[in-house]
Amino acid sequence: MPDTGQVIRNADGAGSTGGAGSTDAPAGLDGVVVARTRIGDVRGLEGCYYYRHYDAIELSSHRTLEDVWHLLFRGHLPDQAERAAFQRQAAGHRVLPEDLIPFLRTLASTDPFDPMAALRTAISFVAQRSGFRSWLDIPPDQLYDNAVQLSAQTPVLLAALHRLHRGQEPVAGDPGLSAAASYLFMLSGEHPDPQHVWALERYLISTIDHGFNPSTFTARVIASTGADLGAAVTGAIGALSGPLHGGAPSRVLDMLDDIGTPDRAQAWVRDAVLRGDKIMGFGHRAYKGKDPRSALLREVADTLGGRTAEFAAAVEDTIVGVLAEMKPGRALNSNVEFYASVVMDACGIPREMFTPTFASSRVIGWCTHVLEQVSGNRVIRPSARYDGQPPEPVPLSDEMTQA
Amino acid sequence: MPDTGQVIRNADGAGSTGGAGSTDAPAGLDGVVVARTRIGDVRGLEGCYYYRHYDAIELSSHRTLEDVWHLLFRGHLPDQAERAAFQRQAAGHRVLPEDLIPFLRTLASTDPFDPMAALRTAISFVAQRSGFRSWLDIPPDQLYDNAVQLSAQTPVLLAALHRLHRGQEPVAGDPGLSAAASYLFMLSGEHPDPQHVWALERYLISTIDHGFNPSTFTARVIASTGADLGAAVTGAIGALSGPLHGGAPSRVLDMLDDIGTPDRAQAWVRDAVLRGDKIMGFGHRAYKGKDPRSALLREVADTLGGRTAEFAAAVEDTIVGVLAEMKPGRALNSNVEFYASVVMDACGIPREMFTPTFASSRVIGWCTHVLEQVSGNRVIRPSARYDGQPPEPVPLSDEMTQA
Repeated sequence: MPDTGQVIRNADGAGSTGGAGSTDAPAGLDGVVVARTRIGDVRGLEGCYYYRHYDAIELSSHRTLEDVWHLLFRGHLPDQAERAAFQRQAAGHRVLPEDLIPFLRTLASTDPFDPMAALRTAISFVAQRSGFRSWLDIPPDQLYDNAVQLSAQTPVLLAALHRLHRGQEPVAGDPGLSAAASYLFMLSGEHPDPQHVWALERYLISTIDHGFNPSTFTARVIASTGADLGAAVTGAIGALSGPLHGGAPSRVLDMLDDIGTPDRAQAWVRDAVLRGDKIMGFGHRAYKGKDPRSALLREVADTLGGRTAEFAAAVEDTIVGVLAEMKPGRALNSNVEFYASVVMDACGIPREMFTPTFASSRVIGWCTHVLEQVSGNRVIRPSARYDGQPPEPVPLSDEMTQA
Repeated sequence: MPDTGQVIRNADGAGSTGGAGSTDAPAGLDGVVVARTRIGDVRGLEGCYYYRHYDAIELSSHRTLEDVWHLLFRGHLPDQAERAAFQRQAAGHRVLPEDLIPFLRTLASTDPFDPMAALRTAISFVAQRSGFRSWLDIPPDQLYDNAVQLSAQTPVLLAALHRLHRGQEPVAGDPGLSAAASYLFMLSGEHPDPQHVWALERYLISTIDHGFNPSTFTARVIASTGADLGAAVTGAIGALSGPLHGGAPSRVLDMLDDIGTPDRAQAWVRDAVLRGDKIMGFGHRAYKGKDPRSALLREVADTLGGRTAEFAAAVEDTIVGVLAEMKPGRALNSNVEFYASVVMDACGIPREMFTPTFASSRVIGWCTHVLEQVSGNRVIRPSARYDGQPPEPVPLSDEMTQA
């Protein structure tokens, strides 16, 4: 898809794929507003983003994951009765059906093991066996229940797949635990350190939603055809598995490993920039200044303390300085992935589970977007402009099946 | 997604999700050109469409499925040596690995059985167990091989799922058969009538590709993140499963059943239009006149003959007449789905397999679009405009995990 410039302009090619009256969009649909939304707002210039009408970083600092999940699904923060009902509904879905385990065992035994691919297959199957149907054919309440189910079960499936892959049996969830605590418990089989639960919960809340990113947009395109929620979420998991979207956070730790000690950071970054390598965890399309998620997660990492957090902070400062000098005017700052890696690592999450853990919060965003898409739906079906050879008659061939 | 009108206009809301300089697209991206493509062209005003630089109906009439498949994947029709090599490669993938059968048996035993959901899970797993990786991390030849594999295996998986669901064992493919003949053979277990093979092949070729429809666009959005081909095709299957995209062809036969006899067509259609019901298989966004696929498939149905083909032709003529009278100026003609149902039915394909059979040809289109997307890729990431309540501070709550 070549860059066609930043301005959408009138088309010239009546009769081509674009059709009469069609207009050319910039490559990648950069800056093209494809919908009105009440779910959230990314304010790149102001360096903040919103879930509904609340600042997402404030929510991440001051509320529970379940409260924010309810805010997104229902449009308002829960009162006490709503909170209790929502927690009960979500906890009810954290019980893995016994007869699903052999299936997950098969998914977990593929070699090499790719947890995002395994999650994609698992979610597709869970929706299938639960009999999810086109939202055109079910009442809105049933679609909402599908959304609670898939968003509650994603971390459960991930933890089970992870343990099965390591030759361990899945751990049943403890209904008394919060969603964040449950996830750590089901991964490790041990009751988690409350500080780790606190830290992970901040990460999970801050990554639920962020504009019309590719996985969210994928979920909306799929839902726009009337497909069931499982189809939309399965597609979104596929999009998030791409390294240009959700697939890079573990590479930040690989970079920190490679740098080794703070005194080597300067030389390492200079070499990388001169070689033209991408520095993992820096730069974001939406934010000119700091990524607000990075600032939150640096604080969380500081609170957790430990060698890696200190080292990461020193490396971050060095990299920002070197990039400011070697790429002036670009204002490259750390993005969400940099401290996400540090926080997840400190909470004991293995690196191959970083992107899947991202999926376990973003799934709440995907489901929210599907719920919004289906109210006032229009099928998302863009156009393209033919740019190939001029038409020719079809050469005949002997290789033709006869009627 | 409210209709924001047909003209992309400049945005006013600097600092919102759309960002500075963003532009509003019409709802559903109608008429918005999101890419240049060399794969094909839909010429709605002229009533024709192209694969590469050839008229798709001419190709459907005069070439084999394998030849057109090669044309799309490689950009040119094969010579004799290329044809033989391509047929060998495709036939090699039509052997179902023995150890996959228990997995497919599980997918086929869900109740109710939804073959599109089962195909979605099956393709996701096949890509996973085959170790498909991000196209950023593999040579282009390997991505091409992935594309041949998934497009060749889709009909094999469908036939196996269908038979397993009916309590029958899968039938091994016959490497001497063409792709179209293989599909009918693997579905029924019997060597198919050559006229059915001819008819089905015309249908399959004519439905490989058709602009940036939602499933094709989904495949491109997912691939744009660097995700593996399995992720892209799995997402596309999900989009095609939506009744507003690929999910309606069997409903045409349900309508014909309901009409019953030609003399009842007039009254039936008038009643349906007066009730405001949608008439299945009529109208297409791209074509003002006849859908060229409908004209081709009416000819194919005529050649096959039989009671249903004659009945369908009589009903089509009646419906077109009634719609012209009751909805003047709309020029509603039969679309691809109307005669697709009739042709598939005449070939002995059960109605629950109509949309899956559509997927078995469209998968060639999806793979072609992924191959094009990755050359000169740009992540597809549009914007949205926040349209909710104005920001408020987050109310504090006792329900907060402490650090």
